[in-house]
Amino acid sequence: MPELSARSQAAPASPIRRLYPLAREAMRRGKTVYQLNIGQPDISTPEAFLRGVHQSDVRVLAYAPSQGLDETLEALRGYYSEHGIPLAQEELIITTGGSEAITFALSVTCDAGDRVLVPEPFYPNYQGFARLTNVEVTPLTTYRDDGFHLPPRSVIEERIDARTKGILFSHPGNPTGVVYSEEELQMLVDLALRHDLFIISDEVYREFVYEGRHRSLMSYPEIADRVILVDSISKRLSACGARVGALASRNRQVMAAVQKCATIRLSAPTFGQLGLAAFLRDAGHSAAIHAIIQEFRHRRDVLCEALSAVPGVTFRKPEGAFYIMVGLPVEDAEAFVSWMLSDYPGEETVMLAPGAGFYSTPSRGLDEARMAYVLREQDLRRACAVLAEGLELYASSVGARGVASGGS
Amino acid sequence: MPELSARSQAAPASPIRRLYPLAREAMRRGKTVYQLNIGQPDISTPEAFLRGVHQSDVRVLAYAPSQGLDETLEALRGYYSEHGIPLAQEELIITTGGSEAITFALSVTCDAGDRVLVPEPFYPNYQGFARLTNVEVTPLTTYRDDGFHLPPRSVIEERIDARTKGILFSHPGNPTGVVYSEEELQMLVDLALRHDLFIISDEVYREFVYEGRHRSLMSYPEIADRVILVDSISKRLSACGARVGALASRNRQVMAAVQKCATIRLSAPTFGQLGLAAFLRDAGHSAAIHAIIQEFRHRRDVLCEALSAVPGVTFRKPEGAFYIMVGLPVEDAEAFVSWMLSDYPGEETVMLAPGAGFYSTPSRGLDEARMAYVLREQDLRRACAVLAEGLELYASSVGARGVASGGS
Repeated sequence: MPELSARSQAAPASPIRRLYPLAREAMRRGKTVYQLNIGQPDISTPEAFLRGVHQSDVRVLAYAPSQGLDETLEALRGYYSEHGIPLAQEELIITTGGSEAITFALSVTCDAGDRVLVPEPFYPNYQGFARLTNVEVTPLTTYRDDGFHLPPRSVIEERIDARTKGILFSHPGNPTGVVYSEEELQMLVDLALRHDLFIISDEVYREFVYEGRHRSLMSYPEIADRVILVDSISKRLSACGARVGALASRNRQVMAAVQKCATIRLSAPTFGQLGLAAFLRDAGHSAAIHAIIQEFRHRRDVLCEALSAVPGVTFRKPEGAFYIMVGLPVEDAEAFVSWMLSDYPGEETVMLAPGAGFYSTPSRGLDEARMAYVLREQDLRRACAVLAEGLELYASSVGARGVASGGS
Repeated sequence: MPELSARSQAAPASPIRRLYPLAREAMRRGKTVYQLNIGQPDISTPEAFLRGVHQSDVRVLAYAPSQGLDETLEALRGYYSEHGIPLAQEELIITTGGSEAITFALSVTCDAGDRVLVPEPFYPNYQGFARLTNVEVTPLTTYRDDGFHLPPRSVIEERIDARTKGILFSHPGNPTGVVYSEEELQMLVDLALRHDLFIISDEVYREFVYEGRHRSLMSYPEIADRVILVDSISKRLSACGARVGALASRNRQVMAAVQKCATIRLSAPTFGQLGLAAFLRDAGHSAAIHAIIQEFRHRRDVLCEALSAVPGVTFRKPEGAFYIMVGLPVEDAEAFVSWMLSDYPGEETVMLAPGAGFYSTPSRGLDEARMAYVLREQDLRRACAVLAEGLELYASSVGARGVASGGS
């Protein structure tokens, strides 16, 4: 057979993929596995959204306009207005999830071989989107001890070169939960102006803010032509399967280029758009989102309290999103999670996402793991108790052996 | 602002995009515009499909598995089996429309700068997918006089170079309606073996065959590891807005690479997949597709009969799909269609897709247009009568002036 493309082979298997078979096997053996590894909320999708789909009056399920259904675009512009981001009709395009919005943003700003800065740890699929669009990721390491806030400007500037076209980040942060301060945001604005960069701001966790205040990059007039907002309804509506996201920019040339991308793939899914329009037309939509956020705020508090009681686990309370990156008292978090799934005794266990999968710098994050607080309070508490027991048992048996033999 | 990527700027505005404002303006003035320019069927989406969506029992609209919902994969494997294409579980992935399937196929077979052969005229979005994945299209011109069948092997071989990784085509053909003969298919098989090429076979019009028999490229065991099937339910179920397609290959390395792409974008839309599973579980699904095909066969016959009565229009009866590429007795089909929309008197007019948009070789197809027979019989007949009148009036006024002044 002919050779496959290098880009399709480049990605290392992420640690989490190696763990899935072990988790499935544990469940097959009847274990309860507290899955803190994925960003799939367990919250019910709002009734108004589902009603919009179930009661939709469709005879011919035609292509939606490439920009999006008129009613959904209008409803979504109303939503952004409520969040202090007024958008003209031509400044918004509905995408097939946030995934497609990121792909579009990279495609219109970068040619093959161009680079984007990405603060790490970052959402691993950023690396995938970049690889498939032939864009290179320049990681910008941030640290647990700093709560994953940005490094000083001089450190960032050292990483910018002639092929760097932009900076991409999720804000609030996945996997870190970081919400950038006004000072950090102003530094990003200054950097974009000084080094002629686009800012690709992934704000899918916009409302998931528990400390301080989230300010959208779209609210800085001095960089209005440099900001590309990528968004998704997946998390705030617990509607991941709808595959509805959005891309917005005040730069008309950007939007014209994105519209070309959108035209090529024809349209975003109709039913998800109908559900979203129905949800946003419902008078209770803000309250519905607010209720979801309050639930996650409560879970964050519960999880942080419970984690404080786990010896050796280090973290700073995250300010937003629904993730926490913790330091574990082990050399290799993947080996530990693997052991929890395969060897830890008892009827329950936990699955976490090993930290290394969120870094592109080799050997960063080996002792870290991401936890998504997507379970109910009592399950989060049980998961932490199991984690504590697991760490203790691992240290006294496998962990100790692992160290003695030069690392597990 | 920073410069946008070259790839986002590369595509010329396609002729059809320049005509849309004129069509909208004509409709605003109260004209009936017979739109033969788009591949959007007017047929009702099957009841069983819509019921599957409307009655779906979804509480949390979660991400579907990246490969596809189990029930949909199983139903789809049944469908392929019925069409003589038995597939193992790991040989099939559900995609977000045929669009995504093509993007995945190009991404896993080609790196930046690699080439695919594409018989022209071709579906214009092929050029868009290629551009966005940094792949180059090598056009392989086919001719109306040959019914757009493939040129001799030696002509094709002249276009293959060291960077040519595959050949991509839709079969039955959009915009040509061509269905390749056994001899042509065997030539493609031989070429793939001789020149180490992948075959990306877009078979979304599989059932739309009115003459001869369609054979899938998946049915040749000697190239089983070289064939990538791309597919979509959009046309055969009149479900374009579902955004559900598929990619299949018997090459496990291809499927592993495609699965990586699928994982990166998380999942295809859930509601479309639920509709498809419900439709395929319905005992009447083959009959429902058959009824749609019979309607298009009838329309093809009606359209060809009516076109035969239009002086100066040349064509060969298409063997499949629901398109026909016709030669028009004008120098510039875009100028003619533009005139039909803006200047043709009376209460009706027609919109066709200018042929040049389907070629990547410059100045090919200028006197051609694609007609999609997606209207009811009486509208097709009226459209042809209007076209005949329009051509006559155009020749005696604008057309003649156009020639005198050196071309319109």
